[in-house]
Amino acid sequence: MGFDFDHEQRRRLGYQLMDGINDYFSSLSDRPVQLPLAERSFADLHDALPELGEEAAVVLNEAMQELIHNGFHVPSANYFGLMNPTPTYMAVLAEALVATLNPQLASLARSQFASRIERETVRWIAERIGWESNAAFDGTFTSGGNEANFSALALALHHRFPEVKQQGLVALGVRPTLYCSAEAHHSLEKAVILLGLGQHALRRIPVNSQLQMDVAALKTQIDADLAQGFLPLAVIATAGTTNSGAIDPLAELAAICHERGLWFHVDGAYGAALVLSDEYRHLLRAISAADSVTMDPHKWLSMPFAAGMLFTRHPQLLEQTFGVETAYMPRIEHHNADGTTLPPDYYRISAQWSRRMNSLKLWLTLRVHGRQGYEELIARQMKLARLLETELLASGHFELTSPSALPILNLVLKAPRAARSDLHRELVAEVTEDGMHWISTTRVQGESVVRMMVISYLTEERHITELAKRVSAAAKNVLDRRSVEV
Amino acid sequence: MGFDFDHEQRRRLGYQLMDGINDYFSSLSDRPVQLPLAERSFADLHDALPELGEEAAVVLNEAMQELIHNGFHVPSANYFGLMNPTPTYMAVLAEALVATLNPQLASLARSQFASRIERETVRWIAERIGWESNAAFDGTFTSGGNEANFSALALALHHRFPEVKQQGLVALGVRPTLYCSAEAHHSLEKAVILLGLGQHALRRIPVNSQLQMDVAALKTQIDADLAQGFLPLAVIATAGTTNSGAIDPLAELAAICHERGLWFHVDGAYGAALVLSDEYRHLLRAISAADSVTMDPHKWLSMPFAAGMLFTRHPQLLEQTFGVETAYMPRIEHHNADGTTLPPDYYRISAQWSRRMNSLKLWLTLRVHGRQGYEELIARQMKLARLLETELLASGHFELTSPSALPILNLVLKAPRAARSDLHRELVAEVTEDGMHWISTTRVQGESVVRMMVISYLTEERHITELAKRVSAAAKNVLDRRSVEV
Repeated sequence: MGFDFDHEQRRRLGYQLMDGINDYFSSLSDRPVQLPLAERSFADLHDALPELGEEAAVVLNEAMQELIHNGFHVPSANYFGLMNPTPTYMAVLAEALVATLNPQLASLARSQFASRIERETVRWIAERIGWESNAAFDGTFTSGGNEANFSALALALHHRFPEVKQQGLVALGVRPTLYCSAEAHHSLEKAVILLGLGQHALRRIPVNSQLQMDVAALKTQIDADLAQGFLPLAVIATAGTTNSGAIDPLAELAAICHERGLWFHVDGAYGAALVLSDEYRHLLRAISAADSVTMDPHKWLSMPFAAGMLFTRHPQLLEQTFGVETAYMPRIEHHNADGTTLPPDYYRISAQWSRRMNSLKLWLTLRVHGRQGYEELIARQMKLARLLETELLASGHFELTSPSALPILNLVLKAPRAARSDLHRELVAEVTEDGMHWISTTRVQGESVVRMMVISYLTEERHITELAKRVSAAAKNVLDRRSVEV
Repeated sequence: MGFDFDHEQRRRLGYQLMDGINDYFSSLSDRPVQLPLAERSFADLHDALPELGEEAAVVLNEAMQELIHNGFHVPSANYFGLMNPTPTYMAVLAEALVATLNPQLASLARSQFASRIERETVRWIAERIGWESNAAFDGTFTSGGNEANFSALALALHHRFPEVKQQGLVALGVRPTLYCSAEAHHSLEKAVILLGLGQHALRRIPVNSQLQMDVAALKTQIDADLAQGFLPLAVIATAGTTNSGAIDPLAELAAICHERGLWFHVDGAYGAALVLSDEYRHLLRAISAADSVTMDPHKWLSMPFAAGMLFTRHPQLLEQTFGVETAYMPRIEHHNADGTTLPPDYYRISAQWSRRMNSLKLWLTLRVHGRQGYEELIARQMKLARLLETELLASGHFELTSPSALPILNLVLKAPRAARSDLHRELVAEVTEDGMHWISTTRVQGESVVRMMVISYLTEERHITELAKRVSAAAKNVLDRRSVEV
């Protein structure tokens, strides 16, 4: 009927796809990240909406060819870029299965078994955060880190001001303020804007030389806000900043929040993955004191988009914040035959309504590779980043701007500060022009830095050595050109 | 390295998965929606986080078995439930490809080709809304209808009050109000709550006998709000309500909005799919007058979760509302070699930041089945719903509560109104107990109704006839039992 194929057609198309995906995976260790600069195009496509269909195998083949040939390959082992990984193969299989079964996570009644896997995955991570299974906690998967942080701040707001749900912020009369470091992610601005708090409500606290939130400056800002009649609501610690991988001093921030009655949120989009490492979880000491934690498995846990997670120690607050009533949503009795209580429907505890199953890929990866898979991934990437640091510093062209605890490097060229921004741009342009490697620049405390990170589980020593050579040679060219010009 | 398999392992696992998916698709025409009542379980799973992995093929097989055997099957041809469909097979293939390539839709620079497909898909639908390609419009894919409606209301708010972005709602001084019908979706409540407007800001306007927003009542409410010092902001029309498929009078509502300077939003999560039907798009006359339109391809367009879409005739407003600055995000020059302007990065025009490619499944389905695929789907489901209506009315046990323009039926048992709620619950319990079929109850204008809809592209006449028999027999049982009791 219409969109259906027969068994043989499906088999052929399915195998065609898996063969293409298989070959793509095989290519990733040596694949350029993108086309050479001159061949890249971003212009709109101009095809009209197809009135009639075309042969499926032909279209599938074309789509794969075009996406692969013209694509930007985040999964390449040569991508030393932002926090998006090579997806695990088990995750890819899981995503196809989720698309097939299409469980509706909005309600338990229509997501039998799927919702149980979802909850188990949340529990596995929450327990590693340090919330044992007998403690009160709950959490949900989200469409990404932005929704996760947005939801956490919504919890903070509705915890303090339950009247906002009915009356809105206009009725509040006070102006809540939130605190994060100058290096925290800018999705926090988006969150406070969309929550109606306004961008000015987010106070960016200066960082210390380790690029961590300066605790003394935080206290000063809170006191100043109180004196001016603002209402301090929440402190947002970052565990693994996007620029540099810095981890804010969680224990000290937890203590301040406890003392002053503020919500303590940890944005661990990238760094909270360390809870899965016995060797490195000490870097997140005191994370269990958080009122809420967010983590994006689509970053360090090698999941494809989308997979954000939100955790809170105040489970009842999820429903208080996100719950609304409907007449049409199917309900099951909220206790089991054995008398145990069932969890609320997801549409009542999430910023979303209909919701995709974003958990199966992580659950399946953990089942097949175990926590040890992540223990090893994290240890290996830590080591590879140190190797890259050593090799680049040995070139004599770079200085490290701040020691990083995580596999992210921030370097500057040995050149006068005023010239660096242009030189860094030239350097990155030269390294990325042929498309093989990808690195980028950013600004840390207002200063231009060259940024590289190890993020693909396919990246090995040989990739690091090759990248260090490329970057060092480009640095030499850029600095030589400059000295001629000067 | 770690999560990687070799080519042969991937081939075997990939084929194992596709064989399982293939057999599952073959089973869908005759598959029960779920287990018999007595065998269903919702209790939490109790496995510990796996420390070490297990054999991939074994785990994959187990996961498929459990999800299929214990699962709730939205994709079954016997699911006459809420608005979630059997996914097209091309969509399933697309989802696996998206998971593999993992394009980062946040920035154009890292989503070469993927972002061009995304924009083309948005254009294809926008043109069918009636916004020709030379008119100003833009849109994005979202994680679902909730984010889409939330985003549309955010546009309305920031359009009228640009100062909210910096200062927040507390500084506004006025209380904006929004208008939707009593039958509009409850995710609108969630949206106004999370935007900080408060649930009271959403005025639910009574409906007429067609379950459409009563235009006179809307005007009265707007006037009353103005008189009380509220600030009317937006009218939200529904094109295809969840309960009944009712379509609000779009042309009249557009005229009121135009006259009074209100934002006109059309929530077409389900019904906006009609833009793809030449035969039925007239039902959406005047949708092109909307300031914003939302549509969920994961409803009538037979896409798996997640696929929401947001469209607006005010493209610059997307960036005005959602745009924030960062130092780390890679930028490409915002014009092409030929001088044409490039679109903004998605993280600047979306409520999300990192974003999954939710467009490929729809693009690929349209390429393979054409617009005609949807023309036929919509026409067939319209016809099947009328057949179901005829057969159920012929049983003599039911009355139709309201004529529906779309493939959704609302019926009541021929029994005293006070008894109906219980009788309907008994009826649905009897029909769904063995797990073969799924239908539900809801409340329309406060009254209990039995709700059935045709949503799977696999549903054929024989399924309709079978369902009508089941439901009629159950109705007879329920009514017979009652007359004995009375």
